[in-house]
Amino acid sequence: MSRQIYKADRVKRGVLKKLRRLGEIVVSDIENGKFPELRIPARTTRNIIYDEDLRQYVLGSRKIERTTKNIRHLRPFAQLLWIATFAKQLLKTGKTSTLRDTYYVAIGEGIDFDDQNESDEMIMQLECLLDHPREDFHIFPEERASIYGDLTIEYTVPGFRGKRVDLSAHPDGFAIGPALTTAEFVRCNAELVFVIEKGAVFSRFVEEGADKKYKAILIHTAGQSPRNCRKLIRRLHDELDLPIYVFTDADPYGVHIASVLIHGSALSAHIKGINIPDAVWAGVWPSDIRRYRLPSMKLTDRDLKRIKELEVDPRYQRDPWRRELKEFWKIRRKAELEAFSRYGLDFIVKEFLPERLAELQKR
Amino acid sequence: MSRQIYKADRVKRGVLKKLRRLGEIVVSDIENGKFPELRIPARTTRNIIYDEDLRQYVLGSRKIERTTKNIRHLRPFAQLLWIATFAKQLLKTGKTSTLRDTYYVAIGEGIDFDDQNESDEMIMQLECLLDHPREDFHIFPEERASIYGDLTIEYTVPGFRGKRVDLSAHPDGFAIGPALTTAEFVRCNAELVFVIEKGAVFSRFVEEGADKKYKAILIHTAGQSPRNCRKLIRRLHDELDLPIYVFTDADPYGVHIASVLIHGSALSAHIKGINIPDAVWAGVWPSDIRRYRLPSMKLTDRDLKRIKELEVDPRYQRDPWRRELKEFWKIRRKAELEAFSRYGLDFIVKEFLPERLAELQKR
Repeated sequence: MSRQIYKADRVKRGVLKKLRRLGEIVVSDIENGKFPELRIPARTTRNIIYDEDLRQYVLGSRKIERTTKNIRHLRPFAQLLWIATFAKQLLKTGKTSTLRDTYYVAIGEGIDFDDQNESDEMIMQLECLLDHPREDFHIFPEERASIYGDLTIEYTVPGFRGKRVDLSAHPDGFAIGPALTTAEFVRCNAELVFVIEKGAVFSRFVEEGADKKYKAILIHTAGQSPRNCRKLIRRLHDELDLPIYVFTDADPYGVHIASVLIHGSALSAHIKGINIPDAVWAGVWPSDIRRYRLPSMKLTDRDLKRIKELEVDPRYQRDPWRRELKEFWKIRRKAELEAFSRYGLDFIVKEFLPERLAELQKR
Repeated sequence: MSRQIYKADRVKRGVLKKLRRLGEIVVSDIENGKFPELRIPARTTRNIIYDEDLRQYVLGSRKIERTTKNIRHLRPFAQLLWIATFAKQLLKTGKTSTLRDTYYVAIGEGIDFDDQNESDEMIMQLECLLDHPREDFHIFPEERASIYGDLTIEYTVPGFRGKRVDLSAHPDGFAIGPALTTAEFVRCNAELVFVIEKGAVFSRFVEEGADKKYKAILIHTAGQSPRNCRKLIRRLHDELDLPIYVFTDADPYGVHIASVLIHGSALSAHIKGINIPDAVWAGVWPSDIRRYRLPSMKLTDRDLKRIKELEVDPRYQRDPWRRELKEFWKIRRKAELEAFSRYGLDFIVKEFLPERLAELQKR
């Protein structure tokens, strides 16, 4: 692979430049005797569009205007500038924060946020303005996914810069926090990626040697994949050309975990590059319940309600999504990834996995 | 430190020996024309006692008898023997499972469990019979905590046996799964352990260099600590003589996370060695809310109900527990670990931590 040198540094420089430009606009307006104003892409429901070609949610062209002429706009304007200042500090010092943490720092500095929802909203507006996910200005999710496989990374965080680690050194997985998210890929012998919702199945894949048999990187999302994990998977696909296969439970929540990874979420429509349109949902499909005679449970009323919601969602209008949602109505049952263990602990890797991959590659 | 050679192997041999003895009792009863029977420590509420001296929950002397003379006992007797057989297979093959996974294997083999609760119960009865936590016969929790610090471990799992890894190599932390839980400690330059409920605060400790300043191993429990993580912390204390400090939110759930780590839980009363009576709850205490003027939230009705439950719990009859529960009633507010960020991101490590440790060491 051709090594990209300190891409993380390029991102950082890019964000800092945009932050500086944002400041300059405000300052020059003031110096020119104008009331500073900003135009921010609107994240209202009406402006969130599912792009059939891109196969993901995007924002439309509507903007909201925030002008200091209007006294009602002054408060959010000042809040947004504070968030931008905080983002700059994080980047300059190499420290990281979370949505919650940022709220507390704001309180301490006397910034007037009613509650965390309000500071979260400003962080998302800054994402829109800068066209960068908040991880790029060091605001990270609280949750941690983990990764294991034949990939060597090089850190860019202070104290670890230039150090390398081989992600096949620890079979339980390396937690994906700020350091791993901002690391460079320096060497990779893997040829594909298995993304797995459940810890038990991640361990199963390790124990049955799925990583070696398929030259696979294994990622454990621990439920819904945190945003920085989605970004990392996207990078594995874009930078290393690795195909991505996603394994979830065959219930409406599992299906949606796969769909968000692939198509993105409405909530993140303003952010590019954190979904993976080319990733493939590889199972457990609801149709696998009949096909493999998997132990299953009755769908609850809550499950059925959720399935109805998904059926009107634009992300579920094509196969396999549409087909598999229909299957739920036929069987009215759900199953977990672990259900393959009814045929023994090794069945999922030794039987199911090669069968499913062959099938998907034929298409 | 004096190196213990393959303690994991000793545990494994011990459990296998006990399993064999269990089988021999049953077989010899049959050969002698007797109906096999087993006496299992009772895990009923009346038999779960808080031992003031040990400062943890333990089982009393009551036993339940399971005899194949009684036709109603035959089913649970057979279920228990199946679980024991499965445990032996896991140990022999070096594979691992979870509670859920075990249930599916049972279904596949035609073992008559009504639902997972029933197989979970049998796994706990086997824990009682063997006097070993289920991790010792390779049934692991789904959840993953993580660890970071100046500790080198050596794996005992197949495929990694004899390989070593330095846990200070990855600042986001190493996931604590089956491989790390069964690893040996081979070198340690750390002098204490900080156990942290929240990911954001774990990252804060790393970024502010708390691991170096205090020669500390950092553990991120991600909420309630999984059992195998508690066992690992106990080993860090017992084998390496490291003092343990626990940091949680100042709300009834955070307080209980610390308490379970220290005193154990009623549910695990039948298992020794997975709590750490000598560990110290180091904050955030409810009394820190006033002392440090932390941003706080009103206790909800659910919180207040939970606090009332804790107040009649034997684990909460001594200080700091009693004192801090009382404080909740005085202020009727709760705070999170991140709340220290109101004084800047570095406050918790640079100001709070040395103050609190000095205070605790004076006592």
